[in-house]
Amino acid sequence: MKNDFVVGVDVGGQTSKIGVVDKDGKILAQSVMRSDIFGSDEDKYLSALAEEIKKNIKEAGKEGQIRGVGVGAPNGNFYEGTVYNAPNLAWAIGKTVPFAKVLSKKLGGIPVALTNDANAAALGEKIYGAAKDMKDFIMITLGTGVGSGIVIDGKLVYGHDGFAGELGHTTAVRGGRQCNCGLQGCLETYCSAIGVARTAKEWLETRKDPSLLRNVNIEAISSKDVYDAAKAGDKLALEIFNFTGTLLGQSFANFVHFSAPEAIVLFGGLARSKEFLTEPIMKAMNENLLPAWKNKIKLVYSALKESDAAILGASALAWDL
Amino acid sequence: MKNDFVVGVDVGGQTSKIGVVDKDGKILAQSVMRSDIFGSDEDKYLSALAEEIKKNIKEAGKEGQIRGVGVGAPNGNFYEGTVYNAPNLAWAIGKTVPFAKVLSKKLGGIPVALTNDANAAALGEKIYGAAKDMKDFIMITLGTGVGSGIVIDGKLVYGHDGFAGELGHTTAVRGGRQCNCGLQGCLETYCSAIGVARTAKEWLETRKDPSLLRNVNIEAISSKDVYDAAKAGDKLALEIFNFTGTLLGQSFANFVHFSAPEAIVLFGGLARSKEFLTEPIMKAMNENLLPAWKNKIKLVYSALKESDAAILGASALAWDL
Repeated sequence: MKNDFVVGVDVGGQTSKIGVVDKDGKILAQSVMRSDIFGSDEDKYLSALAEEIKKNIKEAGKEGQIRGVGVGAPNGNFYEGTVYNAPNLAWAIGKTVPFAKVLSKKLGGIPVALTNDANAAALGEKIYGAAKDMKDFIMITLGTGVGSGIVIDGKLVYGHDGFAGELGHTTAVRGGRQCNCGLQGCLETYCSAIGVARTAKEWLETRKDPSLLRNVNIEAISSKDVYDAAKAGDKLALEIFNFTGTLLGQSFANFVHFSAPEAIVLFGGLARSKEFLTEPIMKAMNENLLPAWKNKIKLVYSALKESDAAILGASALAWDL
Repeated sequence: MKNDFVVGVDVGGQTSKIGVVDKDGKILAQSVMRSDIFGSDEDKYLSALAEEIKKNIKEAGKEGQIRGVGVGAPNGNFYEGTVYNAPNLAWAIGKTVPFAKVLSKKLGGIPVALTNDANAAALGEKIYGAAKDMKDFIMITLGTGVGSGIVIDGKLVYGHDGFAGELGHTTAVRGGRQCNCGLQGCLETYCSAIGVARTAKEWLETRKDPSLLRNVNIEAISSKDVYDAAKAGDKLALEIFNFTGTLLGQSFANFVHFSAPEAIVLFGGLARSKEFLTEPIMKAMNENLLPAWKNKIKLVYSALKESDAAILGASALAWDL
């Protein structure tokens, strides 16, 4: 019975989610804690996280039976077990936090593995979700930003330095929108939730056609507003999704030329707009693929319950510890 | 002593190169035969190739000691052992040739493995060349076209269907030049030998500035002409290399965001212009990389003697047979 359970931790800018998971992917205990009340003090955050993990293990009744802790965190590096300069985590800005090593120590030596959140999501999908029988797929997370986890021949791609899979920062539009990362035209400046809101704002300001979106406060407009308008048949909102899906499809074609995956798997808040995204994505992807791949690459959406997916994905990392 | 030797075959449109290779990468016997005198009859070609291979094995004195034959061929599929619709091979146009199976039979059962020519080049570089100690690199072949072989965690990436690594057909310029493959703006329409000649022709026709290249017959202009002019200090020719290198660097940045390689390895005829390409490539690549990778990715040129590289690369495939 020893080592038959793992812990999954999903580190986000505002909250961290913790869960104790069994071999079938069942979450036995879980909780959510704040990530944003520790200022720049990573040690305080990690102490609080360790206590929260212990509480969950106790609640699940699995003390002494934990194989390891898997963590998904922005800018997480698998090789180093570190979080490297993550702009959304106050305690990891401008420095490299030795997350896995310190957390393991605070947990009395339970091994900790860490990767970035999109890689964790890909692992979760592979072990429990939509990519269960796939050896080659690319996970794209459409959230506040655009993340990616690449699985080739059954294994996550980490690359030479552990940072592989930053497809959200490949160029979608040469010389395009300014990205937080310092580059221009990154895929995530157009195709994340924030990117969609940016498109809406730009178009509402520069165009004259009527739209339900003109009733929304333009400064606070969100991708959810665009979704609601599209749902109501608004032409401009539908055009925004068409534009977004087209850029995604064009980029996906390039990704396919790289690793020839069986499928692209979509996950995240914006992926909930699949009724408006699927068609333009597939059209643009197929238009930009070599004949050998045209109409052969699947587009699938995450099969995991969204609230559990992050924990399951992170926990999946711990099975190899 | 049995199985201590392999045969490498490089299949090209005009010629096929054959060599018997030992464990140290020494070529013990080699020859070149025509590939283009068999019309559409793949069986005739494969019979002639089998005879040529036997002749080389005999000449090397290694009959009965061959572990296998490795073949690099355009549109070669590793999983299937087939050559799929290769436009430059008359006997493989519009059909799928079961190359490995048929050749193995004609060789009395010696196992045959096959992959595309760029993958073979990457393997050669990994076992004998510039990528000897690298687990993660991307090989880019700058020849008539642009090919690629991607090595991740020490292994060639074949993808779900065996066709992975078609980076020459990722989009370098959205809506750009028409490519033979049917797509537009493919990297190889700009950054192959033919692409460079196309740039020269376009610019000479649309610009007015003086250039040594104006002395060349514009219809027959080649990348070698551009190289010679650049060597003589010609401003337009230097600009062409600057343009070519910039597009390569921009694309390489996207590739790095995918697999985080230690290095990009360049090979092929156009790579001989490295004195004019390195600077614009590095500049554009670094300008388009996330901070974590800026100035950290190496650009290296093939270390193999060009005439041997194709044979060595293909032969490397046979060691795993």
